[in-house]
Amino acid sequence: MERIAEHIDGYDYGTPSVARSPVTLEELVKLKITVGWTAEDDRYLQLAGQVLKDQTKPIIDLWRGKIIASIPHLARHSRTPEGEPLPDYARKSGLRFEQWIIDTCFRSWDQDWLDYQNEIALRHMAPRKNQTDGVCSTPFVPFRDIIAFVPAMNETIKPFLAAKGHSAADIDGMHCAWIKSLQLQIALWAKPYSAVRVDQGQW
Amino acid sequence: MERIAEHIDGYDYGTPSVARSPVTLEELVKLKITVGWTAEDDRYLQLAGQVLKDQTKPIIDLWRGKIIASIPHLARHSRTPEGEPLPDYARKSGLRFEQWIIDTCFRSWDQDWLDYQNEIALRHMAPRKNQTDGVCSTPFVPFRDIIAFVPAMNETIKPFLAAKGHSAADIDGMHCAWIKSLQLQIALWAKPYSAVRVDQGQW
Repeated sequence: MERIAEHIDGYDYGTPSVARSPVTLEELVKLKITVGWTAEDDRYLQLAGQVLKDQTKPIIDLWRGKIIASIPHLARHSRTPEGEPLPDYARKSGLRFEQWIIDTCFRSWDQDWLDYQNEIALRHMAPRKNQTDGVCSTPFVPFRDIIAFVPAMNETIKPFLAAKGHSAADIDGMHCAWIKSLQLQIALWAKPYSAVRVDQGQW
Repeated sequence: MERIAEHIDGYDYGTPSVARSPVTLEELVKLKITVGWTAEDDRYLQLAGQVLKDQTKPIIDLWRGKIIASIPHLARHSRTPEGEPLPDYARKSGLRFEQWIIDTCFRSWDQDWLDYQNEIALRHMAPRKNQTDGVCSTPFVPFRDIIAFVPAMNETIKPFLAAKGHSAADIDGMHCAWIKSLQLQIALWAKPYSAVRVDQGQW
């Protein structure tokens, strides 16, 4: 399996420490239909992985270092409650964010993938968000902000998909598969997010 | 205000019967930032409205009559629990779905808009889903299916945006604004959906 580094702190994809997803494989099959997933998307998502795998650092630098960093209500989630930087947290979670790009493109959509999707969602919520890296930051990222940040990720991934000289049709195909995959992942996160209480504000 | 028909059953936008949204105007301002909304998007969404306003019927016919109708786990939400058609329900909710396209493009993002977004979300959930039209259909649409259906809407809206001879740049601009608006609306729906219990399965 492709990895962006030999050791990635807190990256325990496919290990017994990852809990079972509340979403079933049968529900996943239905979600693939809802999102309009095709065999062509399978092929193009693989191709996107080939194109993106050596660009994960500049992509995360753009998303976190530039876009999120410029939006205070998003940037705070990588900082202390007082707004101080947490370089170690940023570095570790940034590596996992890079690996997520790889996993998005290359992982099979099986039980391990479902379970790790659930794990990632939980790590954006209280009380899990800060446990993985043992930090003191905001307790959760509101689900609405995760949903709303997707268009920025989809828009800004385009130049990276186009960076290796593929045809316009191939770039469109990769982009289309990427968009569907991200929205399907957000759909998967809805269930773990539903388990937290609304008065905690995680919405 | 643009309307697709003089009378639209159950369409009570801006009336006192619509409850207050749990999302505040301040949270909406932040969501606009998260989604990357610009003044150009405002302009392009208006233009999209001009382009789409006489095409709402074929768009809904495509989404509901063709795409959703071909996916059993989605089609059931317009039918009886036994799978029988409910033509009156389909017609009335279809008209509101058409009007939603108009509202997406033309309505100001004010308190009335926030409140009606909440109202539409509630009408996809138990116990509200069937009350508006007094029908017996499925009690709710899982939030994950709503999230996951967005790429199909975004993809299939393209030819309709291109149908009036605008430049490629204008079509892209309209499409980009449309995509951001839909994702922002889904983000708004997260809060009302969070108020229902996960064991009801509405996720």
